[in-house]
Amino acid sequence: MALVVQKFGGTSVADADRIRRCAQRAVASHLDGHHVLVVVSAMGHTTDEMLELARRVATSPPQREIDVLLSTGEQMSAALMAMAIDDLGAESASLNARSLGIVTDPVHGNARIRSIDAHRIVRDLDAGRIVVAPGFQGVTDDGSITTLGRGGSDTTAVAIAAALGVAAKTGVCEIYTDVDGVYTADPRHVPAAGKLERVSYDEMVELAALGAGVLHPRAVMFGKNFGVPIHVRHSQRAEGGTMIVNETPDMERVSVVGCALTPDLGRIGIRGMPNRPGTQSIIFERIEAAGILVDDIIQIQSGECADVTFTVESPHLADLKLAVQEALERIGGGEMSVEVGLAKVSAVGVGMRTHTGVAATMFRHLGEAGINIANITTSEIKISCIVPQEHGPKALQVVHDAFGLGAAKKDAVREG
Amino acid sequence: MALVVQKFGGTSVADADRIRRCAQRAVASHLDGHHVLVVVSAMGHTTDEMLELARRVATSPPQREIDVLLSTGEQMSAALMAMAIDDLGAESASLNARSLGIVTDPVHGNARIRSIDAHRIVRDLDAGRIVVAPGFQGVTDDGSITTLGRGGSDTTAVAIAAALGVAAKTGVCEIYTDVDGVYTADPRHVPAAGKLERVSYDEMVELAALGAGVLHPRAVMFGKNFGVPIHVRHSQRAEGGTMIVNETPDMERVSVVGCALTPDLGRIGIRGMPNRPGTQSIIFERIEAAGILVDDIIQIQSGECADVTFTVESPHLADLKLAVQEALERIGGGEMSVEVGLAKVSAVGVGMRTHTGVAATMFRHLGEAGINIANITTSEIKISCIVPQEHGPKALQVVHDAFGLGAAKKDAVREG
Repeated sequence: MALVVQKFGGTSVADADRIRRCAQRAVASHLDGHHVLVVVSAMGHTTDEMLELARRVATSPPQREIDVLLSTGEQMSAALMAMAIDDLGAESASLNARSLGIVTDPVHGNARIRSIDAHRIVRDLDAGRIVVAPGFQGVTDDGSITTLGRGGSDTTAVAIAAALGVAAKTGVCEIYTDVDGVYTADPRHVPAAGKLERVSYDEMVELAALGAGVLHPRAVMFGKNFGVPIHVRHSQRAEGGTMIVNETPDMERVSVVGCALTPDLGRIGIRGMPNRPGTQSIIFERIEAAGILVDDIIQIQSGECADVTFTVESPHLADLKLAVQEALERIGGGEMSVEVGLAKVSAVGVGMRTHTGVAATMFRHLGEAGINIANITTSEIKISCIVPQEHGPKALQVVHDAFGLGAAKKDAVREG
Repeated sequence: MALVVQKFGGTSVADADRIRRCAQRAVASHLDGHHVLVVVSAMGHTTDEMLELARRVATSPPQREIDVLLSTGEQMSAALMAMAIDDLGAESASLNARSLGIVTDPVHGNARIRSIDAHRIVRDLDAGRIVVAPGFQGVTDDGSITTLGRGGSDTTAVAIAAALGVAAKTGVCEIYTDVDGVYTADPRHVPAAGKLERVSYDEMVELAALGAGVLHPRAVMFGKNFGVPIHVRHSQRAEGGTMIVNETPDMERVSVVGCALTPDLGRIGIRGMPNRPGTQSIIFERIEAAGILVDDIIQIQSGECADVTFTVESPHLADLKLAVQEALERIGGGEMSVEVGLAKVSAVGVGMRTHTGVAATMFRHLGEAGINIANITTSEIKISCIVPQEHGPKALQVVHDAFGLGAAKKDAVREG
């Protein structure tokens, strides 16, 4: 008897009818003979409404109380889901923040899971119940409620699956969402994009970080570390979605599995910064303290000095400028320049590890299309190029074509 | 340093502004040098909306999950209240169902408190925090969330006050509501009704049961059993309300402190029922199983048989008829009659214990006003008369006048 963990996001449980449809999925899996654990997010816009209420009650509400407030959203969904399952004739039980057994550190608003005590879950599953868990939350050692931050409910689902020993052949963690699965590119930009049958954890982390918003990278990393197979699929459709699994030999046949666009970036350049030990940490500690995520950091030595550039999503550019200016005043040197109107196109695939020439192919096609490349960064399974913003969508299409990611080609290679 | 427990009902915390005003009360008491514990209900119509959602999700949702669902309403209020207190510069901490420490029996939807472990509350109070507790809920021994049923948040407040040893001179339990306090009669029916400065627990239980809806009788009984002084007062006004306290000698000066009307009753009569041992229990167990509360039970022996009558609020009359019909079929005898269009007027006061002639006074004034009395029931501190429904409001006014409960007279007697 396999264990199936099913996670339903906020859109999937946005109203009574949708909750009932999700409950039907859970009961169907149960009738197929599986142990079933359901993880739910808060309904629709509940979380936003609660945050708005908090802002009206207090100018700067403590994060500890925001966690208590927000956690009630998932708790409501859990109770309603358990009712809907019960109504379909299956026995169910909802858990609360405490009985769920997820113990976290005390970092309210962005807590990390320390341990999971699954004995209550196991007891209920063994009794034949469909267990419904509120996502996104845990408790500290002393019983305070915490929330897990972005991607929290995905992480809850994968973490519980890991704690219950779900691995290939013993079960699966299904992430139900409002898209079919993971695509070779965003279909809104690339009409020929095809759905991937399988993708590796490492590829998914890169694609997720680049904005393929079906699954949070943190949950994917959890899945990778514990070998939990993850199935991303549509909550209202029957057909399968995308399996996220360990790398398998046949994946090497495909060098690039997907590409992605980050459409609106700004870039900060620092020229002539004294290159002493610790200079970089002054800058990036200041940026981190401001809560800004920067990307694509490049440094080039130039005599006694260094030139550094990095990019950031445009809405954070003003804050970033302030932070860098403060850092440079402390360092006592270096001149800042700011550039706006950039985009980033990336190609991702574990096959790059064994295939040479991926970078060259990408650069050649962008060049032939007349698209200038401002910056280049690479990781073992990703190549990213910074391009002018107005060329972003075209660059994505060019890269998609360059690696033969059209639906027909992909199917031939992936399934051949 | 005294302990002040402040309970705010759903109307008092219905929106962000009202929550902020309640928070100001809590902080003011704190600045006066008191330990302060706040108990909150769910915001406004939250509970009704949740029940509606539950009905749309499941035809017959299990009470266990309804408890989980409803408990989130008070938890939300608790988090928001703690934020608002924090925003006013006082340190606060909200508790959840578990950390609150109220352990109940497992009767979901109508749980009884078994014990209170107040160590967490004491720790937070000793640290100088204003503690905010969600009302209406507890947990079972095995950690399932329960709700306390009607009057739940009132009961939470008084029970915690009792557990913390609040008694005369060591503190008070303040019940904030949308009326000024307890009146000699409902001012909507009796314009001359006056606010009572003090009332005894026993009187309050009777008045509360008769529909003076400011405080649930269950909470009053808890207060009586543990000697917790209760102050019923308006949440948006500064002046004091009504203190509910132990009987004191001066209370005997007043025979009747208040009167009340139950405006719409039906009456079931059973004639010629075989009066064997256990006959009555067959009837009333069937009625209890149907979840109906009946009142004013009267039995008169008549030869080998008995005549029984009792009243019920009109909306429950149809269910009651069915239950009684079933019981009579099992008993094998007795004829049921049904009467509608009745009301009940009652006079309440511990002074009746030592004053004779209260009943006679009441009957004489009702008679002089041309109001016929159908049934009479009495307890040690209450006299109730069933009258025709159309005479209900007039009967209330007559009884109020008969005992000199007009505002001027009352003040003279109570405070003289």
